[in-house]
Amino acid sequence: MVPRRVPRWPSWLLRASPGWASWGAGLASPPARRGCSSTPSPPPAVVPTQERYPVLRLPFSTVSEQDVAAFARIVPGLVTTDPAELAAHNVDWLRTVRGCSKVLLRPRTSEEVSRILRHCHERNLAVNPQGGNTGMVGGSVPVFDEIILSTALMNQVISFDDVSGTLVCQAGCVLEELSRHVEERDFIMPLDLGAKGSCHIGGNVATNAGGLRFLRYGSLHGTVLGLEVVLADGTVLNCLTSLRKDNTGYDLKQLFIGSEGTLGVITAVSILCPPKPKAVNVAFLGCPNFAGVLRTFRTCRGALGEILSAFEFMDAACMQLVERHLHLARPVQESPFYVLIETSGSHAGHDAEKLGSFLEHALGSGLVTDGTLATDQRRIKMLWALRERITEALSLDGYVYKYDLSLPVERLYDIVTSLRAHLGPRAKHVVGYGHLGDGNLHLNVTAEAFSTSLLAALEPHVYEWTAGQRGSISAEHGVGFKKRDVLGYSKPPEALQLMCQLKALLDPKGILNPYKMLPTQA
Amino acid sequence: MVPRRVPRWPSWLLRASPGWASWGAGLASPPARRGCSSTPSPPPAVVPTQERYPVLRLPFSTVSEQDVAAFARIVPGLVTTDPAELAAHNVDWLRTVRGCSKVLLRPRTSEEVSRILRHCHERNLAVNPQGGNTGMVGGSVPVFDEIILSTALMNQVISFDDVSGTLVCQAGCVLEELSRHVEERDFIMPLDLGAKGSCHIGGNVATNAGGLRFLRYGSLHGTVLGLEVVLADGTVLNCLTSLRKDNTGYDLKQLFIGSEGTLGVITAVSILCPPKPKAVNVAFLGCPNFAGVLRTFRTCRGALGEILSAFEFMDAACMQLVERHLHLARPVQESPFYVLIETSGSHAGHDAEKLGSFLEHALGSGLVTDGTLATDQRRIKMLWALRERITEALSLDGYVYKYDLSLPVERLYDIVTSLRAHLGPRAKHVVGYGHLGDGNLHLNVTAEAFSTSLLAALEPHVYEWTAGQRGSISAEHGVGFKKRDVLGYSKPPEALQLMCQLKALLDPKGILNPYKMLPTQA
Repeated sequence: MVPRRVPRWPSWLLRASPGWASWGAGLASPPARRGCSSTPSPPPAVVPTQERYPVLRLPFSTVSEQDVAAFARIVPGLVTTDPAELAAHNVDWLRTVRGCSKVLLRPRTSEEVSRILRHCHERNLAVNPQGGNTGMVGGSVPVFDEIILSTALMNQVISFDDVSGTLVCQAGCVLEELSRHVEERDFIMPLDLGAKGSCHIGGNVATNAGGLRFLRYGSLHGTVLGLEVVLADGTVLNCLTSLRKDNTGYDLKQLFIGSEGTLGVITAVSILCPPKPKAVNVAFLGCPNFAGVLRTFRTCRGALGEILSAFEFMDAACMQLVERHLHLARPVQESPFYVLIETSGSHAGHDAEKLGSFLEHALGSGLVTDGTLATDQRRIKMLWALRERITEALSLDGYVYKYDLSLPVERLYDIVTSLRAHLGPRAKHVVGYGHLGDGNLHLNVTAEAFSTSLLAALEPHVYEWTAGQRGSISAEHGVGFKKRDVLGYSKPPEALQLMCQLKALLDPKGILNPYKMLPTQA
Repeated sequence: MVPRRVPRWPSWLLRASPGWASWGAGLASPPARRGCSSTPSPPPAVVPTQERYPVLRLPFSTVSEQDVAAFARIVPGLVTTDPAELAAHNVDWLRTVRGCSKVLLRPRTSEEVSRILRHCHERNLAVNPQGGNTGMVGGSVPVFDEIILSTALMNQVISFDDVSGTLVCQAGCVLEELSRHVEERDFIMPLDLGAKGSCHIGGNVATNAGGLRFLRYGSLHGTVLGLEVVLADGTVLNCLTSLRKDNTGYDLKQLFIGSEGTLGVITAVSILCPPKPKAVNVAFLGCPNFAGVLRTFRTCRGALGEILSAFEFMDAACMQLVERHLHLARPVQESPFYVLIETSGSHAGHDAEKLGSFLEHALGSGLVTDGTLATDQRRIKMLWALRERITEALSLDGYVYKYDLSLPVERLYDIVTSLRAHLGPRAKHVVGYGHLGDGNLHLNVTAEAFSTSLLAALEPHVYEWTAGQRGSISAEHGVGFKKRDVLGYSKPPEALQLMCQLKALLDPKGILNPYKMLPTQA
């Protein structure tokens, strides 16, 4: 046998970083669940969506006492009509949109979902399927009085096959809990995202969530093996296969991945989990400019090859917000840009050698100016928190205008610089961060409060610029309520028409998550 | 810098294998294109599909002289009505089904495809889209007199981005030529299959082809970034994006991946190519029994981790057919089972160490009884040929009944053993091989000629057995003409109904690849 080598890290990586000592205090536990961060004063009330946006209620029926009684027969004890309890379900976690639903249903089985939808379909009642309510585009809360159908109690793991790594579970399982479940069995979930402590796997699939492991494990269109979906009329469509390969007809589950609850309600998911890596390393580096970030990415992709599992970047403004609002300490010298590189592999010695050699080169050639490295889980979590909790820091900074763009990687940061100049003091902060390895920029603009004039300065400017680069105006966050009328910047008319035809086929009365995904005129 | 280590292969691997010396002769060039293998006498005529199977022509129009003239205006000089030239396009390469089309069209652009389909739609003329005609289920040739729409001249690479690895090309590009194109630029195609010398990328996508790299790079549902598709009425649906992430509405391209030309004609493909591995190794090993194959797989997956790129198996009967019909020599001692393991990685020394350590263990513990290893391209190709050319060897053995099953990996070989006992001397050979790493068995039965009694002994027995294991009756070959009435073994009625609704939505006259994919009663 060849002897195991001791990882040889460049010595500069292992010195104590300036902020490191004070760092542990700010993060005694993993990132808090969204919405639980302590804020000094109660947040201002959220303006109802129907007041802020030009949207008209469609002619659905209104929930009657008879309807509530019917629901109580289907899910006894799990029908909520208490306004106080409904409040949190009517508002998105970003506190930007608000509906006025009067009924929340929490079924436990797909059979119950089926009976609920059959009733709603017959009665022409609109339904808002809701997972962890962590969406970014106003897709997971009602716009008017849609019935909220929560998957919160559909939270059972159905099976896990520890030969193939196939997990089958109900749609309401929380991502972080699933991660824990499969990690105990030496596998990992193929996706990970900042909202993991709250988001539901069904919501992840309905949104086609990307997240932090996309670079390595790819899209949910590839990793989801099967789905159980309840259609608008209550039909249960069982495509919950656990096979890696199945070419028996159209791959129907694909239709529902990314359909945001508008074509059916996902009630169970079968997903392929990769083996748990034996070694994980995270490097957090400072770069002198965006060109350096790009060169670091190219060099790193070549040097780390198959063990590269994430390449994230954030600008100095992000770091300042994370320091200010969450009291996390910067682990490296102040820099215009920071990158977080993660490796996941099967041989600690080999991985260390690859990463060490890359880091030595990156520092030696001036690609990066400072860096720190984590190999144990606690420090890895701390470094990841800096990146994962940017969204949370932004939401504590004021009203946030969020853009989630796919762009050619060379042009990824141009829009941030140009917007800063364009908006001037009208914006509190203009920041850029995201999944550089996937060409995905999260562009965020904060202000003291929502203002239509700032919105008008941002839109359609951001969309036009993106379309000019042949980019996507929604890389991973989806369409929801907020982006439905700007799809034309990324989709031709023929595609929009086919989308509407599919919606009409699967949900002819349009009761599933209305006012979302499809253009208003549809 | 850490010094590069010399790969340390177990010495037994590097000794000359018994058949190795004589081996080169049989394979002076890469595997021949399908259909080009020399056979001693001309093959027997193929019985027309409409005579062998109970199928009735649907009431489509018949191609008139005016239609031919109209086509000649759309694609001047590219309309073929010569029966001799049409013959090869009317018969599948397995020589099991035969249509009687009178017209072959070879457009060069999607605009030409659009004009052709618009005409066919108006005139109610049925169309059989055809790529490389390498399908296994009779999906790529006409059943009656459908017009053959060949993608053979749509063979241009549109662009390749050597930062992201995104290839955009026309649908008629041959897979092997695309491989060459991207390999020159240090990338590889995310799929590879035995028919690579003939198959078209558009056909691969339409079939949702799996193949030899599936274990590592996953499904085309994950790697295809965009498609251009011409719908039945001639509408061009441009979803030819090159973005890794794009959540702007329903992911329409997914509908067409694996739809076998029944929902639209794929005219261009955008696909993500992984970086070319810096080191590739192939080990070819003999195993004493199937339990040993399974244990080898589990051990190897743990030891090789992220560098494992293929795990294929074949039984002794496959090896005998490859030796007899293709004169390829067995590179290791005779064994009941053989496995082919490929690694692809970014660091030759690390990969060699991982593989060496695994092989040492596998031999030491008796998991494998003999083996040989290839690290240079010529020998790698030779080893792969043994696995890739089994299909060809089978087709030279007589009429082939082909089954392509997804099964729980532990039960993968049971059906082969049980069928051998069940069929006795009625079958010439019953063989099993396939993509063990994906749970995908290719079960093949050869006989001197087609016989309905042998077919009756095979079907529905094989399908019932597969359904009993909750497997798939078509893992990667698709449905085509031959499997359309057995989908019910792997799909519930609600799914079949939705398939029919989608077909009716996208192709209301049913002109695209009729008699394929959808159940007869639909």
